[in-house]
Amino acid sequence: MDIWSYTQSGYREEDTVTNGNRFLVGNGYMGYRGTMDEWGKSEFAAVNLAGVYDQNGDKWREPVNAPNGLFAVLSVNGETVALGKTTAQKHTQTVHFRRGTHSRDTLFAPVRIRSERFVSMAEKHLLCSRLTLTFSEDCQAELLTGIVTDIWDINGPHLFNYTYQADSILLAEARTGELNIPVAAAQSVKAGFDCAEKRESTETGVYRRLSFNAEAGKSYVIDIFSAVFTGLDDKEPGKQAYSLCQKAAESGFESLLSAHRAAWEELWQNSAVELQGCDEAARALNASLYHLHSIAPRHASALSIPARGLSGQTYKGAVFWDSEIFLFPVFVHTEPELAKTLLRYRIETLPGALKKAAEYGYRGAFYPWESQEGGAEGCTDYNVVDVFTHRPVRTYFRDKQIHISGDIAYALWRYYEITGDLSLMREGGAEVILQCARFYLSRAHSRLDTDKVELLDVIGPDEYHERVGNNVFTNQMAAHCIACSLELPELFPDSSFFDDLIKKLDYEDDFNLLKKLLPLLRPAFEEGEIIEQFDGYLELEDCDLETVRGRLLDEREYWGTNHGVAAHTRIIKQADVIAMMALFPSQFSDKTVERNWRFYEPRTEHGSSLSSCMYALTACRFGQPDLAWEHFIKTASIDLEGGGKNWAGEIYIGGTHPAANGGAWIIAVLGFAGLSVLNGELTANPRLPSQIKSLRFPVTLRGKRVCVTVTHDGWTVE
Amino acid sequence: MDIWSYTQSGYREEDTVTNGNRFLVGNGYMGYRGTMDEWGKSEFAAVNLAGVYDQNGDKWREPVNAPNGLFAVLSVNGETVALGKTTAQKHTQTVHFRRGTHSRDTLFAPVRIRSERFVSMAEKHLLCSRLTLTFSEDCQAELLTGIVTDIWDINGPHLFNYTYQADSILLAEARTGELNIPVAAAQSVKAGFDCAEKRESTETGVYRRLSFNAEAGKSYVIDIFSAVFTGLDDKEPGKQAYSLCQKAAESGFESLLSAHRAAWEELWQNSAVELQGCDEAARALNASLYHLHSIAPRHASALSIPARGLSGQTYKGAVFWDSEIFLFPVFVHTEPELAKTLLRYRIETLPGALKKAAEYGYRGAFYPWESQEGGAEGCTDYNVVDVFTHRPVRTYFRDKQIHISGDIAYALWRYYEITGDLSLMREGGAEVILQCARFYLSRAHSRLDTDKVELLDVIGPDEYHERVGNNVFTNQMAAHCIACSLELPELFPDSSFFDDLIKKLDYEDDFNLLKKLLPLLRPAFEEGEIIEQFDGYLELEDCDLETVRGRLLDEREYWGTNHGVAAHTRIIKQADVIAMMALFPSQFSDKTVERNWRFYEPRTEHGSSLSSCMYALTACRFGQPDLAWEHFIKTASIDLEGGGKNWAGEIYIGGTHPAANGGAWIIAVLGFAGLSVLNGELTANPRLPSQIKSLRFPVTLRGKRVCVTVTHDGWTVE
Repeated sequence: MDIWSYTQSGYREEDTVTNGNRFLVGNGYMGYRGTMDEWGKSEFAAVNLAGVYDQNGDKWREPVNAPNGLFAVLSVNGETVALGKTTAQKHTQTVHFRRGTHSRDTLFAPVRIRSERFVSMAEKHLLCSRLTLTFSEDCQAELLTGIVTDIWDINGPHLFNYTYQADSILLAEARTGELNIPVAAAQSVKAGFDCAEKRESTETGVYRRLSFNAEAGKSYVIDIFSAVFTGLDDKEPGKQAYSLCQKAAESGFESLLSAHRAAWEELWQNSAVELQGCDEAARALNASLYHLHSIAPRHASALSIPARGLSGQTYKGAVFWDSEIFLFPVFVHTEPELAKTLLRYRIETLPGALKKAAEYGYRGAFYPWESQEGGAEGCTDYNVVDVFTHRPVRTYFRDKQIHISGDIAYALWRYYEITGDLSLMREGGAEVILQCARFYLSRAHSRLDTDKVELLDVIGPDEYHERVGNNVFTNQMAAHCIACSLELPELFPDSSFFDDLIKKLDYEDDFNLLKKLLPLLRPAFEEGEIIEQFDGYLELEDCDLETVRGRLLDEREYWGTNHGVAAHTRIIKQADVIAMMALFPSQFSDKTVERNWRFYEPRTEHGSSLSSCMYALTACRFGQPDLAWEHFIKTASIDLEGGGKNWAGEIYIGGTHPAANGGAWIIAVLGFAGLSVLNGELTANPRLPSQIKSLRFPVTLRGKRVCVTVTHDGWTVE
Repeated sequence: MDIWSYTQSGYREEDTVTNGNRFLVGNGYMGYRGTMDEWGKSEFAAVNLAGVYDQNGDKWREPVNAPNGLFAVLSVNGETVALGKTTAQKHTQTVHFRRGTHSRDTLFAPVRIRSERFVSMAEKHLLCSRLTLTFSEDCQAELLTGIVTDIWDINGPHLFNYTYQADSILLAEARTGELNIPVAAAQSVKAGFDCAEKRESTETGVYRRLSFNAEAGKSYVIDIFSAVFTGLDDKEPGKQAYSLCQKAAESGFESLLSAHRAAWEELWQNSAVELQGCDEAARALNASLYHLHSIAPRHASALSIPARGLSGQTYKGAVFWDSEIFLFPVFVHTEPELAKTLLRYRIETLPGALKKAAEYGYRGAFYPWESQEGGAEGCTDYNVVDVFTHRPVRTYFRDKQIHISGDIAYALWRYYEITGDLSLMREGGAEVILQCARFYLSRAHSRLDTDKVELLDVIGPDEYHERVGNNVFTNQMAAHCIACSLELPELFPDSSFFDDLIKKLDYEDDFNLLKKLLPLLRPAFEEGEIIEQFDGYLELEDCDLETVRGRLLDEREYWGTNHGVAAHTRIIKQADVIAMMALFPSQFSDKTVERNWRFYEPRTEHGSSLSSCMYALTACRFGQPDLAWEHFIKTASIDLEGGGKNWAGEIYIGGTHPAANGGAWIIAVLGFAGLSVLNGELTANPRLPSQIKSLRFPVTLRGKRVCVTVTHDGWTVE
């Protein structure tokens, strides 16, 4: 088995959407779905852009898909040849993790079509594709290629007022509807043979027709280059795209591929986890890191990663807590600059969080549940559609999932704890922590006749139980955030930095209130007890997962909100108490963790790709890595197997699963190897499951790369 | 038009359920539904008992229906004659409000059946019926009559282990399943002619067959007496029932009827409102008071009235806030002893309210939303069935409708204000007020960084908006309750009563906290402003009632809970802000009331029979009684017209509407006449609508009956 690639043989129409995710190529600036060269919007072909958003009318705001400049469809003797329409005698599709490319090889009766595609890791604006056509008989061939502007959108269209240019370089320019951002795509082509070329622009794009007399047995190679720029990159994105396409054609496919591969190789040097003992797991882990690298915002200084990466417009292209809790840990250990990029996004979007808190009548920073550019809240009041009435259902994710602010403070603090680097704190991290603590201060309630302080009417990680009181994950996260805010002065003992900040934020009274609040809010846990997920959880109906599933009348029914089958039972969507234990390992004994694990795991639907990682990580901690194995395989394989839900009610939620991709690394390195870094110092605590012989992986410590090897006998670092 | 009776001609099967309510007879101890003599469980025939409850398995706990001892079905030449099965040539059914009787007159081809029925107002255990049979030809007739024990139950059966006795008196005895309470029904018969009698007991009851050769044109009269006793009345209910039936047969129908009519006449002397100008309205008002008198617990010293009276098991036979807000005002002005009986029920059930508060983690008294005997909470977590999935839906009436405690304190305080009588306060009323105030103290939350005190996560009178913050009705009611608790010491200046009570309840600290709390909790209103019903109400979708109704996919859909069509709009179920204004008239200027009335009224579905009364009353107050007229007619006619909803989701909620019955009197006397009594002193402030020429009604002041006359020119009292 090749652990560095994944190939699928044969064509099944029903795999179209999943394969678009499975075979995605990307470079953080954009993602290109794993579709065929000749496919369009009905097959969900898309060039998904990072950080460019648009809203059409009152539909959901979502990221913009750029025009597709790699489109190419062949006709043989006037007959279109396309997978899904033309019968294929053989067909394979492959994603190459190490080199970061996608290839297809399809044998139709008249012609074999091969292509290799990549989104350049060396030049963020560039997409490249090489088509190789081999004919089985002499024929008249025509390749229609160009920039398709009739593109797949979930809540579009987003691009308007197209203008086209059709000289040797094709160019399509448009503007987004809401913010009038220019978006440009160009295309150049280099054919390795003589052909006639005609160009045309239509309502659906700008194209060229390359026609030639093909000879049987001979291969014809055509290289296609496309460049995408937006107004966020440059004042004249059209000019830039045009010029880049020109240069790309001059450099040629092979030279561009070579630069691309070198960039990927460096990423792997920093991050590849060598897993011995189970090739399937090794490949799944490679796939996971491949997907992470394909969407990491290396081109930006302050940007984060959407919950479905760059695989489409699902979840509005928004950034969730996934970034801080499931992605940040990977990067802070392998590529700390990228970890900073993710967190700087939160620092830069603090104004959005302040605004959101104020809108709800609170002070401080209430970060968006689904953060778009500038910290705009992308989460709407209605996120699910009732499958029986087809009416939108009010959900409270936006209003009540207040742990998000604490999650961000947690990651900021972890960055400091792991690296010992205070720069992010100075750059605004400390301010974010203070504003998040202030938010909890104003969100908390106390009763008049007791000391009790409560966080009421919240949603924890388990979204199937909305509007609960004192979710322990939330209370713990809030208490941690407040504790961090109170520890901040000790980080800056000899400078006026902190005092100046307190003054600037008019924070003195709040600081004193927080000191009083912390002991009243922080949950107290008893050794070995089952921790109740929220007030009243243990009074809910205790029935097993299959009983609850059996109550579904439609498999697409949403399990949560007041009407969902799980809402008034103890069945939870994902790790919640266990997620808290995973994030605060020093506070819980192995015995307590194991007892709660064995209580909650059978009651968890794992309806989120964020769930298994937490269960696996904690199982390793209490010394039962074999309990973690299945969760590890499930997490690491999610985008290979095409697992995960594609629908919530009637809403498409498919795409890649970055949090699970990060989770796979977390289980392997923080779980199985037991890596722990504090202030730049590293230790490991191997808990390898029986399936794994050894793990070997790089870690970046204070700018230097070290390599850790872990076996059943111990661990070494070099 | 006879304003003292209501007659329906003709038979329509679809009216069966509604007529059962419309033609109900009752005496507070029991109600007998307006069904035909020959009908049974499938036509919802029932003898509904006050204050006797039973739970079968985990079904809803509900009041017990007694065996039906007035059952009588005729056969002519072996053919059963029964309305709905046998074609009727003529049929009328009448309820006589003044005399408190029900009659039917049905002409079938072979026989005319007439009957007159009453539940004795002079002897609470007694039901009487006189059948008059007139045959059109000579024939062989047989009357099957007896005690039917196969009775209608919604969540039954409730009676088990029947024993029967069949001598000249029939007797059926059984016990309830849950509490083993004995229930006994007896029957005696007096036929005014010779007939043969055979007796038998079957699985469905104990019967006698009276057979005779009937002559054409001759009338045959049979009087049937039935007595009902339970173990709550006597240790030997069977013996008592037997003995009463014996005595009844001896006394005879006419003498019993005469005593019954005398008792009714006295009730009318105390309460009848003479309305000149509109006979339809006069009759509807008589019907309303008729229904109230039929269910008022005159036989008890501490009992209240279920939300659907004695018309069946709907709403679990439970007592709601209706008693204090919609029924108490009628009785406190017309029959103060009965007002005390209602409030004593709350005093006696204080332990249940203390228990409920403790179960939810609070102190003080949290009264049941649906109170059964002893203050047991009858309200369940699931009160609606989803019409699409047929699954029960979690509602929060039980948990969040906390205004109930304040409503009770409000009525206790009103009793004192109106009568100047402190006896109820001494009997436990003061303790109830203190415990309710304590409940609000412990239920309130404050923020740490502001002075604001909040009542979070509540449901106000408008049940379509669940789990809202700071519902003004609720906050106002809680603040009033606290204000009353703080005023209590002034009521007992020269006695140690209050000090002793404070000591007994360990209340000193709470008393001081309440002083601090009151100004922080009491809502502040600005002159002329639209008062927001709860936090965020004015941000909800503002669409009209017909738009919301148009979104229904099934007319039985419930409008509230998170999925209901009204839940996230400004459409409300019933008066809420306006109910507050109705209950606290001195706090709002006419201008403020009118402005809010004109804002909220078009946004009110009036999906509860409690709604129109509040709108009508406030319209009178701001001098627009013509705006009140339609609400008055609707309220007063509800049980005549058979209005009101019969279904909430898939759950039957039909029955009579005591709150609307009370509301009709409230509109007429407190609204149109503007009656106001303070400390036994009476004033009026007539606001007669154009349809009414004059109103004349009795009021009981300090034990004396006075009569108030109101015209468009002024008012007099004699």
